[in-house]
Amino acid sequence: MMEKQYRLDPACSQSFHNRTDFCIGTGRMGLALHQEYMDELRLTQKEIGFRHIRGHGLFCDDMAIYHTYQDANGETHAEYNFTYLDRVMDGYRSVGLSPFLELGFMPEKMASGDQTVFYWKGNVTPPRSYEDWKAMVQALLRHLLDRYGADVLTWPIEVWNEPNLPGFWKGADMPEYFRLFEETFRAIKEVDGRFTVGGPAICGVDDERWLTEFLKFCREKKIPLDFVTRHFYTFDTPEESGHYSYATLRRPEESLKELEVSRGIIDSFEEYRGIPMHITEFNTSYRPDSPIHDTTRNAAYVARLLASLGDWNDSYSYWTFGDVFEENGVPFTPFHGGFGLVAEGCIPKPTFWTFAFFKKLQGGCALRSEDAVAVRRADGSYAGVAWNLTMDEADGPKTLSFTLPEAGGDWCLLTKTVDEAHANPLKVWHDLGEPSCLTEEQKGLLRSAASPFVQTRRLSGGEALTFSLELAENALVYFELTPVSGESDRGYSYERATAKQ
Amino acid sequence: MMEKQYRLDPACSQSFHNRTDFCIGTGRMGLALHQEYMDELRLTQKEIGFRHIRGHGLFCDDMAIYHTYQDANGETHAEYNFTYLDRVMDGYRSVGLSPFLELGFMPEKMASGDQTVFYWKGNVTPPRSYEDWKAMVQALLRHLLDRYGADVLTWPIEVWNEPNLPGFWKGADMPEYFRLFEETFRAIKEVDGRFTVGGPAICGVDDERWLTEFLKFCREKKIPLDFVTRHFYTFDTPEESGHYSYATLRRPEESLKELEVSRGIIDSFEEYRGIPMHITEFNTSYRPDSPIHDTTRNAAYVARLLASLGDWNDSYSYWTFGDVFEENGVPFTPFHGGFGLVAEGCIPKPTFWTFAFFKKLQGGCALRSEDAVAVRRADGSYAGVAWNLTMDEADGPKTLSFTLPEAGGDWCLLTKTVDEAHANPLKVWHDLGEPSCLTEEQKGLLRSAASPFVQTRRLSGGEALTFSLELAENALVYFELTPVSGESDRGYSYERATAKQ
Amino acid sequence: MMEKQYRLDPACSQSFHNRTDFCIGTGRMGLALHQEYMDELRLTQKEIGFRHIRGHGLFCDDMAIYHTYQDANGETHAEYNFTYLDRVMDGYRSVGLSPFLELGFMPEKMASGDQTVFYWKGNVTPPRSYEDWKAMVQALLRHLLDRYGADVLTWPIEVWNEPNLPGFWKGADMPEYFRLFEETFRAIKEVDGRFTVGGPAICGVDDERWLTEFLKFCREKKIPLDFVTRHFYTFDTPEESGHYSYATLRRPEESLKELEVSRGIIDSFEEYRGIPMHITEFNTSYRPDSPIHDTTRNAAYVARLLASLGDWNDSYSYWTFGDVFEENGVPFTPFHGGFGLVAEGCIPKPTFWTFAFFKKLQGGCALRSEDAVAVRRADGSYAGVAWNLTMDEADGPKTLSFTLPEAGGDWCLLTKTVDEAHANPLKVWHDLGEPSCLTEEQKGLLRSAASPFVQTRRLSGGEALTFSLELAENALVYFELTPVSGESDRGYSYERATAKQ
Amino acid sequence: MMEKQYRLDPACSQSFHNRTDFCIGTGRMGLALHQEYMDELRLTQKEIGFRHIRGHGLFCDDMAIYHTYQDANGETHAEYNFTYLDRVMDGYRSVGLSPFLELGFMPEKMASGDQTVFYWKGNVTPPRSYEDWKAMVQALLRHLLDRYGADVLTWPIEVWNEPNLPGFWKGADMPEYFRLFEETFRAIKEVDGRFTVGGPAICGVDDERWLTEFLKFCREKKIPLDFVTRHFYTFDTPEESGHYSYATLRRPEESLKELEVSRGIIDSFEEYRGIPMHITEFNTSYRPDSPIHDTTRNAAYVARLLASLGDWNDSYSYWTFGDVFEENGVPFTPFHGGFGLVAEGCIPKPTFWTFAFFKKLQGGCALRSEDAVAVRRADGSYAGVAWNLTMDEADGPKTLSFTLPEAGGDWCLLTKTVDEAHANPLKVWHDLGEPSCLTEEQKGLLRSAASPFVQTRRLSGGEALTFSLELAENALVYFELTPVSGESDRGYSYERATAKQ
Repeated sequence: MMEKQYRLDPACSQSFHNRTDFCIGTGRMGLALHQEYMDELRLTQKEIGFRHIRGHGLFCDDMAIYHTYQDANGETHAEYNFTYLDRVMDGYRSVGLSPFLELGFMPEKMASGDQTVFYWKGNVTPPRSYEDWKAMVQALLRHLLDRYGADVLTWPIEVWNEPNLPGFWKGADMPEYFRLFEETFRAIKEVDGRFTVGGPAICGVDDERWLTEFLKFCREKKIPLDFVTRHFYTFDTPEESGHYSYATLRRPEESLKELEVSRGIIDSFEEYRGIPMHITEFNTSYRPDSPIHDTTRNAAYVARLLASLGDWNDSYSYWTFGDVFEENGVPFTPFHGGFGLVAEGCIPKPTFWTFAFFKKLQGGCALRSEDAVAVRRADGSYAGVAWNLTMDEADGPKTLSFTLPEAGGDWCLLTKTVDEAHANPLKVWHDLGEPSCLTEEQKGLLRSAASPFVQTRRLSGGEALTFSLELAENALVYFELTPVSGESDRGYSYERATAKQ
Repeated sequence: MMEKQYRLDPACSQSFHNRTDFCIGTGRMGLALHQEYMDELRLTQKEIGFRHIRGHGLFCDDMAIYHTYQDANGETHAEYNFTYLDRVMDGYRSVGLSPFLELGFMPEKMASGDQTVFYWKGNVTPPRSYEDWKAMVQALLRHLLDRYGADVLTWPIEVWNEPNLPGFWKGADMPEYFRLFEETFRAIKEVDGRFTVGGPAICGVDDERWLTEFLKFCREKKIPLDFVTRHFYTFDTPEESGHYSYATLRRPEESLKELEVSRGIIDSFEEYRGIPMHITEFNTSYRPDSPIHDTTRNAAYVARLLASLGDWNDSYSYWTFGDVFEENGVPFTPFHGGFGLVAEGCIPKPTFWTFAFFKKLQGGCALRSEDAVAVRRADGSYAGVAWNLTMDEADGPKTLSFTLPEAGGDWCLLTKTVDEAHANPLKVWHDLGEPSCLTEEQKGLLRSAASPFVQTRRLSGGEALTFSLELAENALVYFELTPVSGESDRGYSYERATAKQ
Repeated sequence: MMEKQYRLDPACSQSFHNRTDFCIGTGRMGLALHQEYMDELRLTQKEIGFRHIRGHGLFCDDMAIYHTYQDANGETHAEYNFTYLDRVMDGYRSVGLSPFLELGFMPEKMASGDQTVFYWKGNVTPPRSYEDWKAMVQALLRHLLDRYGADVLTWPIEVWNEPNLPGFWKGADMPEYFRLFEETFRAIKEVDGRFTVGGPAICGVDDERWLTEFLKFCREKKIPLDFVTRHFYTFDTPEESGHYSYATLRRPEESLKELEVSRGIIDSFEEYRGIPMHITEFNTSYRPDSPIHDTTRNAAYVARLLASLGDWNDSYSYWTFGDVFEENGVPFTPFHGGFGLVAEGCIPKPTFWTFAFFKKLQGGCALRSEDAVAVRRADGSYAGVAWNLTMDEADGPKTLSFTLPEAGGDWCLLTKTVDEAHANPLKVWHDLGEPSCLTEEQKGLLRSAASPFVQTRRLSGGEALTFSLELAENALVYFELTPVSGESDRGYSYERATAKQ
Repeated sequence: MMEKQYRLDPACSQSFHNRTDFCIGTGRMGLALHQEYMDELRLTQKEIGFRHIRGHGLFCDDMAIYHTYQDANGETHAEYNFTYLDRVMDGYRSVGLSPFLELGFMPEKMASGDQTVFYWKGNVTPPRSYEDWKAMVQALLRHLLDRYGADVLTWPIEVWNEPNLPGFWKGADMPEYFRLFEETFRAIKEVDGRFTVGGPAICGVDDERWLTEFLKFCREKKIPLDFVTRHFYTFDTPEESGHYSYATLRRPEESLKELEVSRGIIDSFEEYRGIPMHITEFNTSYRPDSPIHDTTRNAAYVARLLASLGDWNDSYSYWTFGDVFEENGVPFTPFHGGFGLVAEGCIPKPTFWTFAFFKKLQGGCALRSEDAVAVRRADGSYAGVAWNLTMDEADGPKTLSFTLPEAGGDWCLLTKTVDEAHANPLKVWHDLGEPSCLTEEQKGLLRSAASPFVQTRRLSGGEALTFSLELAENALVYFELTPVSGESDRGYSYERATAKQ
C-alpha cells in the first residue's frame, strides 16, 4: 500500500482559495416550481449552503414571462407575467439563495427563428427586435428591484449560455452574440449602474479565440466588463449505450491548464486585468446520463478540482445540485448518471459530501498537495480533506500520515469517510437490483446508506502528534483535529464502563 | 477467530416468540409533560414502535389528580383534577401508545404515612382510607373511558410497584399489599368487568415466596386474576463511585432461570395455569447510574435476552425508553448510565437498535441459537439478528456463517451493524472529552455517529447460498436476505460506471 | 328583509344524498409535481378530505411516459418511463387521495395528427395504432398494480375527455371515439376484470344525442359498461374582456334539469338502468378566467348545487381544487377567476367552505329546501348549511328561523359564516389595490381574512328551541346544534368573569 | 352612542414610548421543560416576539443546580448541575428569547430555614452562607458565558423577588435583603463588570419606603446600581369563591400614579437620576385564578396601560405569556383565570392581541388619548390601536372618528377587531358548557374562534380622509392605513366580478 507523509503547518508556503460555496448549478428555472426540486435544494442548503444558483431558461415559455396583445386600435403591446418568476425567486430566498442570473433563452414570440435546444425546447435564436429584448430585460430587473429591494443589485448577471456552440446560439454567430452582449449590458446599466454583468459564458470549444475576440470587442466598445464567465468539463467524447454515456476522465492537472490559459488571456488585456473569472458551470462529464456522476470516483475527482479551482477563479459552480433535470428528458431510473449532488428521493450522492467537506475548510492554509488540503481555523482546530483518486488500473489503496508539530495535550480526531462501503448509495441500489421506481422503504434505506462514516479517535499529543488515514480506492475523507480539555465527571470511568466483563 | 456455522431453515425445530414491541418503560408519568421526553419518545416510536408504556407516579402529587376541599358545612369532599393526566395521555396517543397503567404511588393527602421513595418523593404508604383510594381509582377510569372510549378497556392495569421491597411499600407489608390488591381489583371490575388487572409487580427479592403467597391469596379470595407481573434485572450488587455504579452482569442463561421458576409457580396453580406473565420491567442493571447501559455490550446482552424472554412471558418491558428520568436526581452528563434507549438530545444508544432490529423479526423461526435468531417472513425474505456478547476476557471477535439451502437466483444481503466503531455515541462522546453539556453541534455529531452501519451485498445463489458475518466484540448485526429480480435499464452497466479509470 | 321558517325534523319526507367528497378536479397531472400544487392540495385534504382526484394529461408528453427506440436491427420498440407517474401518484397517496383515472391525451409519438388543445398543447388526435395505445394503457395499469397493489382496482377509469367537442377530440368524431372506448375498455378488463370503466365524459353540447348513441353502441357491442360520465357547467357564453370572461349564471333549477334528462336516458336502457352516473367535472363557469369563481356568490350557488346533485349522480367532481392550472396559460394575478377552491398562496376562496361545510353533513336528512339542508347525526346533534343566493337585483338579505321540537335542556349553536365581510379574500385583495404579486405579508393577511366567522350561542331549549340566522347577500352559513351538559367548576361564574366593572 | 373625533397628526405634541416587546413573564423556570409551555411560547414569539423572559425559580430544586458531596476526607464540596439550566436556556434561545435573570429562590441545601412559597415550594429564606450563595451565582454566570458567549452580558440580572412581602422573603427583612443585594451585586461584577444588575423587585406594598431605603443603602454603600425594578398590579383585594377570585379593577389613571411616584423617588437621588426603571411584573389581578384575565375587558385595560407605561419605565413585563403555571397548583379548567396570554391548547386570549397590536406601533406618535394611540411609520403608513374599556355600568359602545389631513389618493384601511364576538374563546368555551378537559376538536374550534376579525376598506382620500371605528364594550381594534396604488389587470373589474346577477 502506498504511503505518504504530510505535515500540518499554518506557516506553510501553499495557498488555498476556497470559493466552494459561491454558486451552484440547477436544471432549468421552471423546474424550481417542483416539490422534489425544492426538497433536494433544501437538503443541499441545510448541509452545504450555497449563496447563488445559476441555471438556464429564465425567459423560456414555461416561465411564461413574455406576452403580447393587441389593443382596440390593433396596436401590439408587450405585457409581462411575473407569477412564476416570483414563485421561483421566493423559493430560492426561502433557502437562503439568490440567483446568478443567466439571461436566456428566447421567448418564442420574440424569437427570430425556431431552432431549439433540449427536450424542453429552449429557443436559441436572436431576438426579432433588440428593443423588445431590452425592454423585457429591464422590466424584469425593475420588477425584481421592486419586490426584493437593493439586494438584487448583488445578483451577478450573465448574458446567454455557450454562444460558441451552434446548438445553444444559432450558428454560433459571434458578431450576433457580441451585439446581444453589448445591447444587454447597456440596458442593464441603464436600470442601475451597480448591477454587475459578464459573459461570454463559453464552454471549452474554440474557447481561446472566443475569449480573445470577446475582450477585444469589449475594449473597442469601451464596455466596462464586470467579470468573465466560462464553463469547465473534463470528459472526453463519450460512447453512447442505450440511455447512457460512458467516457474517460482527463487527468485533472491537464484539464485545469485550460483555466490558466483563460486567466492569462483576460490578464493580457490591461483594461480587464484581474477582473473576476467565474466558472458558471463545471463537472466531470458534460452529459446528464453519465453514470460516473453517481460514483465515489466522481467525488474524489471533484475534490481534486476544488483544491485548485480557486487559483484562477472567483467562483466555480458545480453543474448541478439535484437530479430534477430534463435536458435529455425525464430519467428512467434514480441512478441514471445525472449531474445532481442529490438523487431523486433526497439521497445525497458521494460528490455531495465533497462540497459539504470543502465548505468547512475556512481558515489559513496548513497543507495543500495533490491528494489533501487542510486549514487551521480561527479557534485553533484543524480541518482537512484527503482523497484517493484512481486514474489507472495500478492505483490502489493508500495511507496518508499527518504530523502536527508542537501539539501539546489531548486532541480529538474526527473523520468522515466516503468510499465504496460508505456514503455510496449507488452500490446499495445496484445490490437491490437497480429498481427503476423506488418504494418509500427503499428510499429510506438508501438515505440511511448515504451518510459518511463518522468516527473519532482520542490522540495524545506530546511533542508532536501523528495520525494516519487509510484511503480505499476513490475514498474521500474529511478530518478535523480539535484540542480536548475537561475531565471525567466525579466517579466516571470509560474504561470500567466498557470492560469486557 | 472463532467460527460457527448456521443454517437458515424454516422447518427448524426451534421456536421464537417475539413480543418485543408490547410494552416499554418510562420515567415517572409527570415527566411525560417534558418536551425532551416527548422528543425522545417520538424517535422511539418512529424507529421501533411500541404498543404500551408503563411507569410510576400516576397518582403522585406532580400529576395533581387528588384534592380535597371543605364545603360550607365544613364537610370534606374529594375532587379530581385530570388536566395533566389528559395532557400525558394525549401525548402518548399522539405517538401511537397507550398506557400499561400502574396504580401508585399514594397522594400525600391520602397517605397514611410520610415515607417516600426517590428524589421525586413518591409516597409509599397505604391509603388512610381504602374507600377514598377506590373512589379515586374509579373516578380515574371513568374519566378515561369518557375521554378515550372503549379502547381504554384494552389498557392493562397493574396494582402498585415492587411491594416486596420496603423502599417501595412501607415495611414490604405483604398482608397490606394483598388487601390493596383485592380492594383495587374489585373496584376496577365494578367500573367495567372487561378491564384486565394483575400484580404483584415484584422484583427478584424473595420473589418465589411472594408469588406463591400472592397466588394462594387470590385463590382463597376467588380473585379471577387476569395476569401476573414481575421484574427482571441481571446485575449484581454494584460498587458505587461518585455519581456512578459499576457491577458484574450475570450470565444470561442463569438469570433467565428465575423466570422459568416464576412461570412454574403460576402454572402450579390450577386456577391460574397459563395466564399471561408480564415482565413489567427489565434491564441489565437496576440502577439509573450504571455506565453499562450506554454500551454496545448492553445491546448484545439485551439481544440475548430478547431471543429468550418470549419463552415464558407474554411481554417484557425494557426499563426505559429514554433518559428523562429523575429517580436519583437530574443526571450530570448526557452519558451517565441512564436506563434509556435514547440519550439526551435524541441520541439513540446501542440498545435502541436491539429493539429496532428485533421488532423486524416477524415470521416463522428459521434459526435460534445462543448468538443468533432468524425468521422467514411472509414474502419469502429472511431477517435475523446476530450478536457477540463478551462475558470474560477470553471472548473475542467471531465469524458466523449462514447457509440458505435451495436458494436459487440472486439475493441481496442487507446488514446493519452496531459495534465499537458504529452506532456507538458513547465512544464519540468520550473522545470529545466527555462534555457535561452538549452544544447543538455536538448533538448533531453524536446523532450522525449513532446510526448502524448499513451495507449490502449481492449474492448469487446456486444450489445453496452462504454468507458470513464478522462480529467484533459485543457487536450486534441485523441481516436481511431478499430475492433480487430485475435487469439493468437499457445501456446501464454498473461495472462500467465504477471502473477505476 | 325576507323571512322564512324551517323545522329540523329527522322524520321529514325529504332525502339528501351526500357524495360531496367522492372526487375533486385538478389541473393537468404534470402540475402535481409542483410544490404550490401540493401545498394547496394538502390544505384541501386537511380541511375537506376528498377520496379521488381527476384531471387531464396522464399521457401528455410532460409526464414522459411513452417512448420508442430502435434496436440494433432497426426495429422500433416502445418503452415506458414511470418516473413522473410514480411521483405524482405518491404525492396523491401522501394526502389520502387516489386518482379517478382519465385516459388521455395522446403522446405525440403515438398521435395520428398534430391538433392540440390548451396552452400546454395536449394532442387530441386518435392513436396511429390502437395496438400501441392498448399496450401503453395495459403497461400503465400493470405498473400501478405492481407498485400500489390491489387498491388500484378501486380507482375508476374514464376514457378520454369531452369527445363531443372538436377541440378535445379531432372532429368530434363519434365513431372514432366509440372505437377508442371499446378497444380501451376491453384492454383494461384484460388486465383485471375488476377494474371499473366508463365514459363518454361529454360536456353539455349535443349531449343527449351523444349519450344515447353511446349507450346504443355499448349495448350493441355487449359492453358491460360500469358507469356513465358527463360534465356540468351552468354558465352562459361569456363576454371576454382583456384576460377575463364574464357571463350570467343560469338558474340552478333550470341547469339541474340537464342531469335529470341524462339520468333518464341511461335508465331507459334496460342493460344500464341504475348504473352509476359520475359528473366528472362541474362548476359555474367553464372558463379558468371567470372572476365569478372567486366570489361568495359562487359559494352560495355551489351550495345550492351540492344540495341537489346527489339526486341523480353517484358523484360530482368540482373542477378544480386549486389554481395551479395552465389551460389558458399562467395567470397574471392571484385572483384571476381560476377554477380553484384555493388561490395561490394557499388562500381558501369562499367556495372552499361550501365543500368543507357539506362534507360535515353526515346523517339522516332533517331539512332540505332551496336555501338550506340539514341532517341529524348519529350522536344526536344537528348540522346544516344555509345560503342566500342572489339571482337578480331584487334579492337582498334574509332571515331563516329554525325550530327544533322537543329539544329539552341546553344546546350550543355553532355557526360559521362566509359572506362579503367574512372568508372573502377577494374583497381584501381588491382593497389592497389588486396586487399582481403577493408579498409574504400580504399572503398572511389574506389567509387571516379567509376563515369563516366562528360564533357560538347558548340556547335553552324548553319544549321547543328556535333560532334565527341572518344571511347577507350571497352568505353561506354552516350551523351545528349540540346538546350541552356539565356544570361550572367550583366557584366559577361566567357572569362575574365578564361583568362590566 | 358616544362619539369622539380624533386627528392623525405626525406633528402632534404627544409622545408615545413603546417598550411593549422588551420582556415577558413566565411561570417558574422549571416549567420551561414542558412541551405545552414551549408550544405556547413558540406561538407567542411567532405572533408577538419578545426579547427577554423573566420568571421565578432559577435556583429552586426542580432545576437541580446546587449539590454537595463529601470527599474521602469527609470534607463537603459544592457541585453544580447545569443539565436543566442549559435545556431551558436552549429552549428560550430557540425562540429568540434571552432571560431577564431573577436570582432566587434558595436551594434547600443552602437555605437557613424551611419557609416556602407556592404549591411548588420555593424556599424563601436567606442563605446559610453568603459565600456559598455567591459561589453558586458566579458558577452559574461563568457557565452561561462559556456556553452562550458575550451575549450573556446583555441579560439583565435582578436580585430576588418581592422581598417586601414576608411570603417571599422571610420576615420581609429589609436589612437582610440589602445584604443579599450588595453581596450578590459585587459577586456578579467580579465575574464581569459589564453585567447590569438591579433590584429591589418590590411589589406595591409599603413600596415607597422600601424604594427610598434601598436607594439610600446603595448610595451609602457606593453601589453603582444599574437599574431599579418593581411590580405593578391594579386589582383590589379579591373575594374568593371555590377555585376562583373576583375583584374590582382600579381606574388605570389612578394606578399609574404609583409609577410616577417611584420614578420620582429614583430621580430624587442624584446618583441614580434617570437610571432605567423596569416593571418586572405587571397585570390586572395579581392572582392566577382571576377570571378577569381571560376577558376582552382585560385586553382593553392592558391596552390602556401599554399606552402609558413607557412614560416612566424602560420596560414592563406582563405576568405571564402562558398558562403553564403552578403557583396555586394545577388548574382545573383551561379558562381558569390564569395570567397567560395563551390558554392551554395554544389558544390566544384577548390580551394576547393587545401585545400583538402594540408591537406593531413603531414610528412617531400621531395620536395619543385615553382610548387610542397611533403612529406614523417610516414608510408613510399609519398604525394605531383603539379600545373601549368599561369601568362602570353606564359605559357602552362608542364610535371613534379619525381624520387624516392632506391624505391624497386612495388608502386601504385594515382593521383587526377583538370584542365579545371576535377573538373571544372564553365565550365559546362557556357556550360549549365550560368543559374541564378539551378534546382535540374543541381545541381546534377554540383556536379558530380566537383570531381577530380582519377587515379592509378602500378609502378615497381627497383633501382629507375620514373614517370611523365602532367599538363595542371592551372592544380592542388595531387599524392600519396604507396608501394604495396600482391599477386593475387588463380587463379585470371587481364590480362585474361581484355583481348580484
